[in-house]
Amino acid sequence: MNVLIVHAHNEPKSFNSSMKNLAREQLENQGYTVQVSDLYEMRFNPVATGDDFLKRIDPEYLVYALEQRNAYKQGGLDPEIGAELEKVKWADFIIFNFPIYWFGMPAIMKGWIDRVFVSGYCYGGTRFYDYGGLRGKKAMLSFTIGSQKHMFGSRAVHGELEAMIRPIQRGILGYLGFTVLPPFVAFHVPYISHEARVQYLRDYQERLQNLDRLTPLEFPSLDDFDEKMHPLYKEVE
Amino acid sequence: MNVLIVHAHNEPKSFNSSMKNLAREQLENQGYTVQVSDLYEMRFNPVATGDDFLKRIDPEYLVYALEQRNAYKQGGLDPEIGAELEKVKWADFIIFNFPIYWFGMPAIMKGWIDRVFVSGYCYGGTRFYDYGGLRGKKAMLSFTIGSQKHMFGSRAVHGELEAMIRPIQRGILGYLGFTVLPPFVAFHVPYISHEARVQYLRDYQERLQNLDRLTPLEFPSLDDFDEKMHPLYKEVE
Repeated sequence: MNVLIVHAHNEPKSFNSSMKNLAREQLENQGYTVQVSDLYEMRFNPVATGDDFLKRIDPEYLVYALEQRNAYKQGGLDPEIGAELEKVKWADFIIFNFPIYWFGMPAIMKGWIDRVFVSGYCYGGTRFYDYGGLRGKKAMLSFTIGSQKHMFGSRAVHGELEAMIRPIQRGILGYLGFTVLPPFVAFHVPYISHEARVQYLRDYQERLQNLDRLTPLEFPSLDDFDEKMHPLYKEVE
Repeated sequence: MNVLIVHAHNEPKSFNSSMKNLAREQLENQGYTVQVSDLYEMRFNPVATGDDFLKRIDPEYLVYALEQRNAYKQGGLDPEIGAELEKVKWADFIIFNFPIYWFGMPAIMKGWIDRVFVSGYCYGGTRFYDYGGLRGKKAMLSFTIGSQKHMFGSRAVHGELEAMIRPIQRGILGYLGFTVLPPFVAFHVPYISHEARVQYLRDYQERLQNLDRLTPLEFPSLDDFDEKMHPLYKEVE
């Protein structure tokens, strides 16, 4: 199995970066081939602009997704994007490792999503969810978050954690067709003890050893919708 | 009323940019003072790094939020961040105008959030939701999205739109204490007719003329939680 770890933390000595290092070592020990895209180290450019295309269909008016589709077909994507897209194609399993910033990804990782998951190859038209261009591949989030665990839940102050990361898990990964494994979450990381951090790393290691036993998240199937995306059945059974 | 429009579209002639232009003109006509942060035009840097602080507490190990708190207190924020933060302080109402990328903000705008809403001033400790540092100010999203309107809803293919933008509306704006007005949404924009676009602009103008009649979104009150953020009441009444 080929594994890509997309990692975004601005401190290489952070606990979050240790999670990335652990995942690389552990998965290599399990016999997998691992590549890491360390976005801060790479100084990855997260801003989607017309410069992302070597040649434009319309140099006067930018429609980003349209230019993605054309540039992908013509081999005219910016080399930084092209190299990352090759890793995506190569990977059977992608781990996104990051600290939660504002209940989402740090901008440098959001920009990787914006620029690398190109229209035309990764999705397009009615190629999404179970017909997404990356179906057959697995993905998983592994993240640290400042909040405590009890701050999430049906009656908790922030509501369900799952609801806060829904645009990522369903709107990005599920949409693209990935089989999405449950996220690995380390809570309250800036404030916890050394022992608690070591325990999180043990838990993460165990998680990585048991990837095959995880039950993937569920997303809609386009088989339940017509070609204009109206639901096929009036009643949910 | 002072209005800040934070705008992020990579095509200045786009419909999305027209929404920004309309909002500026319309609100000025209504007697408001308007500033625009056009992030692409400014070539705003969205990547949160140690360079965001003129002087670090710890130059060897970066804890971003900690450095934000210190730099804010000492006046040591990167000038690009400081200038944006001054606009935030000045504004009574902030509009975020952007195209949806992957059910979220384009990276350049997510990075504005990551870097400008500094810990210490905008939030910190138990200063969030109705105790957030920006309480008293209003905020609203105005966005374009490729999907059609019928693709959102309880039985629709993407589920409720509100659920997809929850991390932004609740996790960012509500968390900071903003009074959040319902979003203005233009669906399916890349594919609709000129007439439909003109109608969206008319609708947006009417919306801007009637801001005072909008019912803000509801978020949790920290009065319902103890100081460790456990709910104060066992049962929801």
